[in-house]
Amino acid sequence: MKKNLLVAQSGGPSSAVNATLSGILTEAIKSPEIDKVYGGVNGIYGIISRQLVELTSQMHTNEDFKLLETTPGMALGSCRFQLPAPTADSRLYDEILNIFEEYHIGYFLYLGGANSMDTVQKLGQYFREKGADIQVIGVPKTVDNDMPCTDHTPGFGSAAKFIATSMLEIIRDSEAYPISSVTIVEIMGKESGWLTAASILPRVLGNEAPHLVYLPEVPFSMGQFINDVQQERKKHRSVVIAVSEGIQFSDGTYVSQPQSGETEYTGVGQVLERALVSTVGGKVRSVVLNVLQRCSGHLLSQTDITEARRMGTFAVRHALAGETGKVMCFERISNAPYLVNIGVVPVEDILQGGIKKFPLEWISSENNDLTQQALDYMVPLIEGEVEYPCKMGMPVHFHFDLTVGK
Amino acid sequence: MKKNLLVAQSGGPSSAVNATLSGILTEAIKSPEIDKVYGGVNGIYGIISRQLVELTSQMHTNEDFKLLETTPGMALGSCRFQLPAPTADSRLYDEILNIFEEYHIGYFLYLGGANSMDTVQKLGQYFREKGADIQVIGVPKTVDNDMPCTDHTPGFGSAAKFIATSMLEIIRDSEAYPISSVTIVEIMGKESGWLTAASILPRVLGNEAPHLVYLPEVPFSMGQFINDVQQERKKHRSVVIAVSEGIQFSDGTYVSQPQSGETEYTGVGQVLERALVSTVGGKVRSVVLNVLQRCSGHLLSQTDITEARRMGTFAVRHALAGETGKVMCFERISNAPYLVNIGVVPVEDILQGGIKKFPLEWISSENNDLTQQALDYMVPLIEGEVEYPCKMGMPVHFHFDLTVGK
Repeated sequence: MKKNLLVAQSGGPSSAVNATLSGILTEAIKSPEIDKVYGGVNGIYGIISRQLVELTSQMHTNEDFKLLETTPGMALGSCRFQLPAPTADSRLYDEILNIFEEYHIGYFLYLGGANSMDTVQKLGQYFREKGADIQVIGVPKTVDNDMPCTDHTPGFGSAAKFIATSMLEIIRDSEAYPISSVTIVEIMGKESGWLTAASILPRVLGNEAPHLVYLPEVPFSMGQFINDVQQERKKHRSVVIAVSEGIQFSDGTYVSQPQSGETEYTGVGQVLERALVSTVGGKVRSVVLNVLQRCSGHLLSQTDITEARRMGTFAVRHALAGETGKVMCFERISNAPYLVNIGVVPVEDILQGGIKKFPLEWISSENNDLTQQALDYMVPLIEGEVEYPCKMGMPVHFHFDLTVGK
Repeated sequence: MKKNLLVAQSGGPSSAVNATLSGILTEAIKSPEIDKVYGGVNGIYGIISRQLVELTSQMHTNEDFKLLETTPGMALGSCRFQLPAPTADSRLYDEILNIFEEYHIGYFLYLGGANSMDTVQKLGQYFREKGADIQVIGVPKTVDNDMPCTDHTPGFGSAAKFIATSMLEIIRDSEAYPISSVTIVEIMGKESGWLTAASILPRVLGNEAPHLVYLPEVPFSMGQFINDVQQERKKHRSVVIAVSEGIQFSDGTYVSQPQSGETEYTGVGQVLERALVSTVGGKVRSVVLNVLQRCSGHLLSQTDITEARRMGTFAVRHALAGETGKVMCFERISNAPYLVNIGVVPVEDILQGGIKKFPLEWISSENNDLTQQALDYMVPLIEGEVEYPCKMGMPVHFHFDLTVGK
């Protein structure tokens, strides 16, 4: 008997999570084992209140699938909701099983970051214990790239491409004037330095900048920082610095933490800017690469979007093959030529793996720069440009009708 | 006798000022009246210390001209240097004339904002008084779009396209979660609201957001702002607000000015974020659209780049026709179809015109939104996408050899 597939999105938006969804829809719609595809609106949070909408009938042409691929954000809506332990609220789990049975769900694909994989683990285990024939597969999505057991995560490549391109353009901007200047670029990544690392990519095009790079994996010293900048100013008229929002002093406190007299966190770029103004002096500015890092649908990596879509199609196949409690992953075979396998790992491995930090051996001994290995790792992930349809000068986005019960 | 043409760039970088330079080079190189084209490095500041480089021999193929068009920043370097009055330092002017004669300069094209047009006026007048046969033409460049006597300025369209696209993507990002939220987007424009106005463009694609828009042309009231947000929160789960960095209270003080106990300006987005957190409450975030607004070479308006290049070619023709002390301008004939004439105005008109503010009649009576006329004005300026060459996933930029005396 044919069953239905349920897909939902969770965690922070990215530029590639809808490409994964597009891959899932493509594969599920053409699979004879699957009847309807339902979308859970706002992740597991919406599913537990029966916010399920039928998606199959909303995909009409190949253009719809392509449009969904280049639409940033979360086409099905997201949540930051984690299920309680089954022992704490077994009635909630019974109710979820009821809903799944009511909608004849045989396959549940959950797109999200490490926190969302907790849901995959709990539901997968619960369904197994109850003998319910429902396969649960997790599909990674995090621009932060800090999920363990996978070479990288869909969304990181496009975020890295946006950061690399932005850094390149900020370098061009900073070169304009004949006076000496320092530009600090603050980049996302509270827990890991992957996104900040992407800022060094302009070097493969012959740029020397960024001249200094600070990641949260190694302790930050304000004295060393000021010294670093003084050294670079002797060599370059325009010094450009990349810094992760998550850098910490050796005692573990964030550089961006409130100072005496302050009540709120200041951006780390502003903190460093003030420190330089009061010591090194001269023209100093800080630039924050904002939320566009995770939603720049107008600047996508073709590698990332292709991989995100393929991971979606493979997730459907693994579910159809009867696998459950598994998470999709990438295994890199080689950098050049760039070769990647798509596989699965047990969800428990993801949960036990913790945060995948940027490798310490790819950070220079002075803690202010990265090695060639970092470039070799990142270059393939940002390659290729994605065309997207425009109307009146702006990208066109795909929209589902998320009205429940139509 | 053939003469040489000198071109230089001044003021803040933009995404289109190198397209204007490309148009100038194209036209000058094919004009039989012109021998060599020189570039002044770092504007008039570099010219007075003989920083002139030959450009003609650096343009080899059509691809070079196209690459220059899509390179953001200032390919010749910039300055923020204004000439003293001729009466204050006549020797400097004599020296400039010496340099121009030494290099056989017959035409000087100066690309810049309103401040740079002061140089056009002073040099044009001085050369005329001395009977020197040197035509001086100003070519506008300002993303702020606040130069008088022209419908718009090259660079504004691409900046507006970046702002519109960013706003569209921030709207997608902000829709993801089921909880109520407020997103404040801070946009460039200390003196005028043109760039902030571009944030409403997503509405022509059917988006309701941004729900509130605040420009520096009208006084800002914190009480009214909080009330506005409370009203919009009743209507929309995710409220998005666009605000100019230059908004002021009715007494003329900037909303971003240091508060008691503070020593530095805070971003206006942060000020408004704090005000909402302490009154309306809930999830509030502020996003600063940074320097990428003026240097996003990866997201250019075809209309803007085409017009910028054409304005460059026309500037050469006007100089060859013997005009001097003039500034290039656009005159809009109609919005739909979009028709624009390129002409010239006396530089004195520009200098006397002051800052061209955003029209008050395009701002709603509540001072928190804009009218359809604003959309009609802006839509044609962002139309068309520009392809650019990429290498290893990033845009390739054009570089002149700016070594003097080679």
